[in-house]
Amino acid sequence: MTTTTFPQPQDAAQVPRFAGLSTFMRLPMVGPDRLDTVDIGLIGLPWDAGTTNRAGARHGPREVRNQSALMRKVHHVSRIAPYDLARVADLGDVALPPMDLMLGLDLIEAFYRRVHAAGVRPLSVGGDHLVTLPVFRGIARSGAVGMVHFDAHSDTNDSYFGGQRYTHGTPFRRAVEEGLLDPKRTVQIGVRGSVYDPADLDFAKAVGIRVVQMEEVAARSNEDLLAEARSIVGDAPTYISFDVDCLDPCYAPGTGTPEIGGMTTLQAQHLVRGLQGLNLVGADVVEVSPPFDVGGVTSLVGATMTFELLCLLADAHGQRGRLTPAGSAA
Amino acid sequence: MTTTTFPQPQDAAQVPRFAGLSTFMRLPMVGPDRLDTVDIGLIGLPWDAGTTNRAGARHGPREVRNQSALMRKVHHVSRIAPYDLARVADLGDVALPPMDLMLGLDLIEAFYRRVHAAGVRPLSVGGDHLVTLPVFRGIARSGAVGMVHFDAHSDTNDSYFGGQRYTHGTPFRRAVEEGLLDPKRTVQIGVRGSVYDPADLDFAKAVGIRVVQMEEVAARSNEDLLAEARSIVGDAPTYISFDVDCLDPCYAPGTGTPEIGGMTTLQAQHLVRGLQGLNLVGADVVEVSPPFDVGGVTSLVGATMTFELLCLLADAHGQRGRLTPAGSAA
Amino acid sequence: MTTTTFPQPQDAAQVPRFAGLSTFMRLPMVGPDRLDTVDIGLIGLPWDAGTTNRAGARHGPREVRNQSALMRKVHHVSRIAPYDLARVADLGDVALPPMDLMLGLDLIEAFYRRVHAAGVRPLSVGGDHLVTLPVFRGIARSGAVGMVHFDAHSDTNDSYFGGQRYTHGTPFRRAVEEGLLDPKRTVQIGVRGSVYDPADLDFAKAVGIRVVQMEEVAARSNEDLLAEARSIVGDAPTYISFDVDCLDPCYAPGTGTPEIGGMTTLQAQHLVRGLQGLNLVGADVVEVSPPFDVGGVTSLVGATMTFELLCLLADAHGQRGRLTPAGSAA
Amino acid sequence: MTTTTFPQPQDAAQVPRFAGLSTFMRLPMVGPDRLDTVDIGLIGLPWDAGTTNRAGARHGPREVRNQSALMRKVHHVSRIAPYDLARVADLGDVALPPMDLMLGLDLIEAFYRRVHAAGVRPLSVGGDHLVTLPVFRGIARSGAVGMVHFDAHSDTNDSYFGGQRYTHGTPFRRAVEEGLLDPKRTVQIGVRGSVYDPADLDFAKAVGIRVVQMEEVAARSNEDLLAEARSIVGDAPTYISFDVDCLDPCYAPGTGTPEIGGMTTLQAQHLVRGLQGLNLVGADVVEVSPPFDVGGVTSLVGATMTFELLCLLADAHGQRGRLTPAGSAA
Amino acid sequence: MTTTTFPQPQDAAQVPRFAGLSTFMRLPMVGPDRLDTVDIGLIGLPWDAGTTNRAGARHGPREVRNQSALMRKVHHVSRIAPYDLARVADLGDVALPPMDLMLGLDLIEAFYRRVHAAGVRPLSVGGDHLVTLPVFRGIARSGAVGMVHFDAHSDTNDSYFGGQRYTHGTPFRRAVEEGLLDPKRTVQIGVRGSVYDPADLDFAKAVGIRVVQMEEVAARSNEDLLAEARSIVGDAPTYISFDVDCLDPCYAPGTGTPEIGGMTTLQAQHLVRGLQGLNLVGADVVEVSPPFDVGGVTSLVGATMTFELLCLLADAHGQRGRLTPAGSAA
Amino acid sequence: MTTTTFPQPQDAAQVPRFAGLSTFMRLPMVGPDRLDTVDIGLIGLPWDAGTTNRAGARHGPREVRNQSALMRKVHHVSRIAPYDLARVADLGDVALPPMDLMLGLDLIEAFYRRVHAAGVRPLSVGGDHLVTLPVFRGIARSGAVGMVHFDAHSDTNDSYFGGQRYTHGTPFRRAVEEGLLDPKRTVQIGVRGSVYDPADLDFAKAVGIRVVQMEEVAARSNEDLLAEARSIVGDAPTYISFDVDCLDPCYAPGTGTPEIGGMTTLQAQHLVRGLQGLNLVGADVVEVSPPFDVGGVTSLVGATMTFELLCLLADAHGQRGRLTPAGSAA
Repeated sequence: MTTTTFPQPQDAAQVPRFAGLSTFMRLPMVGPDRLDTVDIGLIGLPWDAGTTNRAGARHGPREVRNQSALMRKVHHVSRIAPYDLARVADLGDVALPPMDLMLGLDLIEAFYRRVHAAGVRPLSVGGDHLVTLPVFRGIARSGAVGMVHFDAHSDTNDSYFGGQRYTHGTPFRRAVEEGLLDPKRTVQIGVRGSVYDPADLDFAKAVGIRVVQMEEVAARSNEDLLAEARSIVGDAPTYISFDVDCLDPCYAPGTGTPEIGGMTTLQAQHLVRGLQGLNLVGADVVEVSPPFDVGGVTSLVGATMTFELLCLLADAHGQRGRLTPAGSAA
Repeated sequence: MTTTTFPQPQDAAQVPRFAGLSTFMRLPMVGPDRLDTVDIGLIGLPWDAGTTNRAGARHGPREVRNQSALMRKVHHVSRIAPYDLARVADLGDVALPPMDLMLGLDLIEAFYRRVHAAGVRPLSVGGDHLVTLPVFRGIARSGAVGMVHFDAHSDTNDSYFGGQRYTHGTPFRRAVEEGLLDPKRTVQIGVRGSVYDPADLDFAKAVGIRVVQMEEVAARSNEDLLAEARSIVGDAPTYISFDVDCLDPCYAPGTGTPEIGGMTTLQAQHLVRGLQGLNLVGADVVEVSPPFDVGGVTSLVGATMTFELLCLLADAHGQRGRLTPAGSAA
Repeated sequence: MTTTTFPQPQDAAQVPRFAGLSTFMRLPMVGPDRLDTVDIGLIGLPWDAGTTNRAGARHGPREVRNQSALMRKVHHVSRIAPYDLARVADLGDVALPPMDLMLGLDLIEAFYRRVHAAGVRPLSVGGDHLVTLPVFRGIARSGAVGMVHFDAHSDTNDSYFGGQRYTHGTPFRRAVEEGLLDPKRTVQIGVRGSVYDPADLDFAKAVGIRVVQMEEVAARSNEDLLAEARSIVGDAPTYISFDVDCLDPCYAPGTGTPEIGGMTTLQAQHLVRGLQGLNLVGADVVEVSPPFDVGGVTSLVGATMTFELLCLLADAHGQRGRLTPAGSAA
Repeated sequence: MTTTTFPQPQDAAQVPRFAGLSTFMRLPMVGPDRLDTVDIGLIGLPWDAGTTNRAGARHGPREVRNQSALMRKVHHVSRIAPYDLARVADLGDVALPPMDLMLGLDLIEAFYRRVHAAGVRPLSVGGDHLVTLPVFRGIARSGAVGMVHFDAHSDTNDSYFGGQRYTHGTPFRRAVEEGLLDPKRTVQIGVRGSVYDPADLDFAKAVGIRVVQMEEVAARSNEDLLAEARSIVGDAPTYISFDVDCLDPCYAPGTGTPEIGGMTTLQAQHLVRGLQGLNLVGADVVEVSPPFDVGGVTSLVGATMTFELLCLLADAHGQRGRLTPAGSAA
Repeated sequence: MTTTTFPQPQDAAQVPRFAGLSTFMRLPMVGPDRLDTVDIGLIGLPWDAGTTNRAGARHGPREVRNQSALMRKVHHVSRIAPYDLARVADLGDVALPPMDLMLGLDLIEAFYRRVHAAGVRPLSVGGDHLVTLPVFRGIARSGAVGMVHFDAHSDTNDSYFGGQRYTHGTPFRRAVEEGLLDPKRTVQIGVRGSVYDPADLDFAKAVGIRVVQMEEVAARSNEDLLAEARSIVGDAPTYISFDVDCLDPCYAPGTGTPEIGGMTTLQAQHLVRGLQGLNLVGADVVEVSPPFDVGGVTSLVGATMTFELLCLLADAHGQRGRLTPAGSAA
Repeated sequence: MTTTTFPQPQDAAQVPRFAGLSTFMRLPMVGPDRLDTVDIGLIGLPWDAGTTNRAGARHGPREVRNQSALMRKVHHVSRIAPYDLARVADLGDVALPPMDLMLGLDLIEAFYRRVHAAGVRPLSVGGDHLVTLPVFRGIARSGAVGMVHFDAHSDTNDSYFGGQRYTHGTPFRRAVEEGLLDPKRTVQIGVRGSVYDPADLDFAKAVGIRVVQMEEVAARSNEDLLAEARSIVGDAPTYISFDVDCLDPCYAPGTGTPEIGGMTTLQAQHLVRGLQGLNLVGADVVEVSPPFDVGGVTSLVGATMTFELLCLLADAHGQRGRLTPAGSAA
């Protein structure tokens, strides 16, 4: 197969960016019956059933698609040209009922099992952060993954509202409990903000998750931090989860749980780029909440970070080949 | 007891409207343990678990409280002075988990059973329209109520998303099925907008609900329409439910399911005022969704319509005395 | 002097509407030393020191100037061409300290005395409604004027905040007390909204002001209402004061004290146009508050109503000639 | 062919309205190579090269597509079910360079020639109003069409900016000059706003266009007005052009040239519905300008009016069959 | 008294953050008659009578209260748990007339005298920066305080508008003149922006205030800067005043006098945290102006900085005990 | 000539910033017939005919003028007092047709030829970046200029949309081709964002332009970067072009082509200030697009950067005297 047969984004020098159908990166849509033609699948998860305060992330995929029309084809620093390295497509949204949490978890899991079984690396756009749990159930059943996790919150609380165990504040406690996420190969970057209880971060630390608070991010160099993160996740299957609230609200006001004092986009881009070469099995960008956004800036951030992650996944595909589901759990 | 002992709103000529704590109408807060000191209770229901498209009504009570600071004390047309006629208080919000629909239904019902048992007429501010179902469960168990219902939608669909029977599109089908709402004493005003199926309104009509589409509202005089509505509900216990989407979106953009071609606020005020004298057992204003609002205009509409309804309830209290729970079901 | 020497707005077919300096109607600026070259003076009063709740009208003149770039030269219904009938100019803003209420009153009065003495008809853009009081002091010292007053509020309260007698809720009580406004030749149109006390409108009625509440506006024809208004003010010197809150907030959200259930712009335009032929000595558009506006719609309304009033004043100039200050008080 | 084979919108009770790809009415996309499978084609024209003041209509199709997700399947008044009567599809956008006006005119014309030749009735979403000129060039070369034109402006000016003859203020003068539009079968409804010159409307009247100013719309009944409009266009091929600025800016703030004092959406809906039965060859909704919109209300209006027009076109298809290009010019 | 009897914020894991009454930090309200039960009092000062350009800070306390619902209970870096260390309550707003500047100054002073006499440390939320002057009059009569002052402006101008000596640009010149503020123990951090005159900063420097311009903040380390600030104020009674315009407008657009090139929130948080241990007698957060805010981001910053300051005051209470009014002036 | 005769901005301590006519920096307007009285001319270029995606920069000059009312008279770091060093005036806008690209290019060129011939240093406010090309044609015909160029994009693409050679993405390729810009004396700072093709930056590099990508800006010190930039442009005639999209979108959301990961305003200010002393012949601030702005923050940035550049130009005038057109090309 030659490069020229790979799907390409619609060319903005031919069709203006404001015209044409809004797909992720202006790529062709590919139905779930043709997963064999895809190496990396962009998937929308319009769902915020796990949100404890400000809902709205259900509208995230649509607006990230719109803003992704501003992405071009080649990364200006790494020079990665993802559409030359892999067959990338928009796999559409998973249709999810907004008010049935347990059903939604099952539907996402089922979709990702299929994607994973087909050897496709998923790059998901949420949706609130609860979506990552069923994605893990779909792609990490046969072996826990490691994770580099950008977030203002550890998302390892136990429960809310008298026993509600599935919320956007709890996915990674569940994932560890279910054996989907290897806490010792997990690093959380950018955590900050007041906590309910001094013990709130105890679970994360007790199970071995490395929590890098924002203040530490600011104090260390990106290179230093990246070296530690890379050594934590190693070369085993790894997932990158990018919650836009890791950024300061001035960059990402449209999110459910903003915390001031966050990362700059430039910092975040440097850190993500520094993860090139990992054994990546998937990634996501979550918590873009358009009803709370301002002028689309958060959706633009979401779209750009999706492109950054796409470059990493395409590079992984180029280096390591199509995902072997069994191998990914090795 | 003399009038002077009745609770009064904080005086805007003393404390500016932008100052002081935000309670409904700037009234005192009264806890659930002192319901005997209250004749009409303003209650917030910050919940949108039943919303099928654009969530956000969970933020409604807070913003309606804020805008209600612009309400003064006497109605300029009817000259009703509600705080001279009844003891009115803000009973606070019912605390509801955003993501557990069935638990939320139970919590609302329990709260309203208590309010109803105490003889308090509830005036609720939603929340999405699903809230009216558990309110009915709380106040209409012993006898179905009649209803004047302002809405762009009949809200009598059967289910969504493969069997979800409790949504903001289904409360009144459930209420009729559960014997809480008397369809023959129910009139819906302002219904409009494309429908899923020609049969969509069949349930409403089959059970005897009188549906007045917007086009009929525009074609008839307010007086004519009111005469019909009053004859339908008669003098038995009646509830008024005001969904702000009955209004055109230019008046109420901040709502979950806007439909163009709706009522003016002036029409709605005339129609509500024309319901003075009914045997009112409660009322609500629902579907104010601040994340989709523009400059607070929808919350101001919500606050003003709440004041209009408060005048009716205060008049009912003045004319008929404190609600006798048993009597209300007679 | 021939028509061709009259000042003309910059031509939008030559200079786009978004270009060029923002003056009222794109007219030339004329300094106060050249009042003899002007028949009708557009004046900005950027001041909201009298505002009791939401300040912001201080920013009104700038935004009304910006939106007035959309006005063209000839009225499409009356066919009045104001710039062919009179020499119209932008006289700039009166410079007013935002926080010294009594000084501001004096500065406005002094400016309008000068304008009035020069025989110029002033057309002012506020600013909150308190500005009309010192305008009256400037132009009506020698004889009370009549007034057609469009407003949601009577603005005849006595005081706020423990004795504050000069606010945007009190100008017309002061004007009557000071002999500047003839209450028997005053009609207020569009008044509505809850009141502090049933006696609130008593002053207005006791002194003979005709208050037409919004509900009466809706019930009567424009022609009927205009006939009454014209007979009330008669042919003696008359002022038109247009508070944008007479309009429903959907047309004019950017105002200090919005009240739902108001006039449409089309109604307001019809009513204003119906005042052609009165013995007009001045007019104003007040309470445009850009910080609370939405997309500039209120400023556009303010600019258009200013143009409507300009046509009336130009017609008055054409019919009655330049204002004779002594005569205006006859 | 049975009804069940017609393309249907994605079902909102299965896939939430905020999920899935944004096509017009959630319909399937059909490429220009399959026009034979389509009876009515929804086409986006993202282009505002003709805009003289506030650009932005180039973003109209995308946002109208987004808001069209709120449309359901059956008209609630006429009971027209368009997807049962005709094969309707989203034909995508015409790719147009934003800055080459003459090339854009040619590209649109070419696209519509092809659509017209295939017998497809086009329903276009602009884009500024200049787009209607090349649409006419595509579908009315062989015979002038009649038109019912909803607009605040006559759009029959001659030129701007020193000879620029193609702008959104001039399309219908050009269309008459080119023999594409029959002025004697043209009626313009809702025209208002100040004019550059008293002679501005002379061209329209001189060539026989019936201009119904907004004031006349308000003074007459819808039925009366419709009777006249229907008699003007008769049974020959007719086009409906709906510029959202015919509406008051409170309904449609997101437009290039707002004029206060406009139609309500309910009036507009009644008038459009009253055109059922005409010999319709196409229709458009233009001048939705998202950068100036507020909370998406104008896009929602645009989507709903597109649905209203779709019902008329589907009814025309059902009554008269597939468009016969030759016949349309008869 | 044991910790368990201290007032605690409403628990967001029980009552969602969007529900319940909006008090500062969701704490109980305590009336001025019960100041003996309070160690640290959160006080709203909804007043902007001193604002020279964009008013709106009068709305600050309400929105900061709303956003403070997002604060949790324990500081994630310092581990300070303020509600375990001190009895903290919301003391409500001081009711202030918006238009009587001299009366407002007196009312604030009187309130703070009472608070100070009761031994309560005040933590105020403005309001414009003029409020700090009467706060000082209330708490520093018997002895000048030192101050760490975060601001884009020195606020030591002499007068505006022909002699207006009390504005939000002059409080600290007045405070020094009145002997309330010890200039030699005062440091201003973040000052920047063009100045009226090269001599503008002369007063500050002449009296011994240390002005750290933003450029110096950027050039030095936080630690270095903190060491200097701490040595300047020493261990005598000190006040912290945080004007949100010290931050770059991207973090705090909702303010009266934005200046680009400001601090990041993370910098500001580090600097505030570094003041732990000072002999703090009070603090404030001022110039949050909701009408100019964007999506509530500035109010969130205001709420978070209030929490940061609360931690410092609670620590001071824990270390030094309840404020002894006499001692504070020692 | 003494300093006191130089034009001064209207004094904000006399006339509030929200009052008075909006000119750049509140300076007097001077017509093109009096260029001899001006040393530095502020010129608006309201034109976005070259914009490929989001138009709106045509509204830039008006809003930058509005926000420039917040600028004071003396630079707080450099202590430059521009109005004491040079005669500065607002020369108004160049009237440009929005839809005739080639005519617009000619009109701008003609205006700048005249300005340049008069020895006036132009400081322009756009408008999209295409405007710099005709400015160069006006001022650099007789000799290519050097340039320090702040931008997220190199703007040296060849063409768009099938051969469109004049867009806001192509001006500097044209300027080099036309011999107006000396690529070897050109440095571009802040370039970033995905590219269409790896070869996109080849033209810039091939002709000798020094492109400093954002990542390099972040990695080096301002001083180091400035030293290189100064050595590149040397002491020959140099122009500074400041595209606000060099800044991160959190500082400048209102622009046509935002790219995340950009400069802070503080960085940009430092870099611009570091260019003091160059042989400056003009400067511009471009791509402020108010329809996409949020709360005016981008316009405020535009106004402040215009003031920063004004200080440099005034210093150049003070040091080098009035521009000698012939000399500038030497």
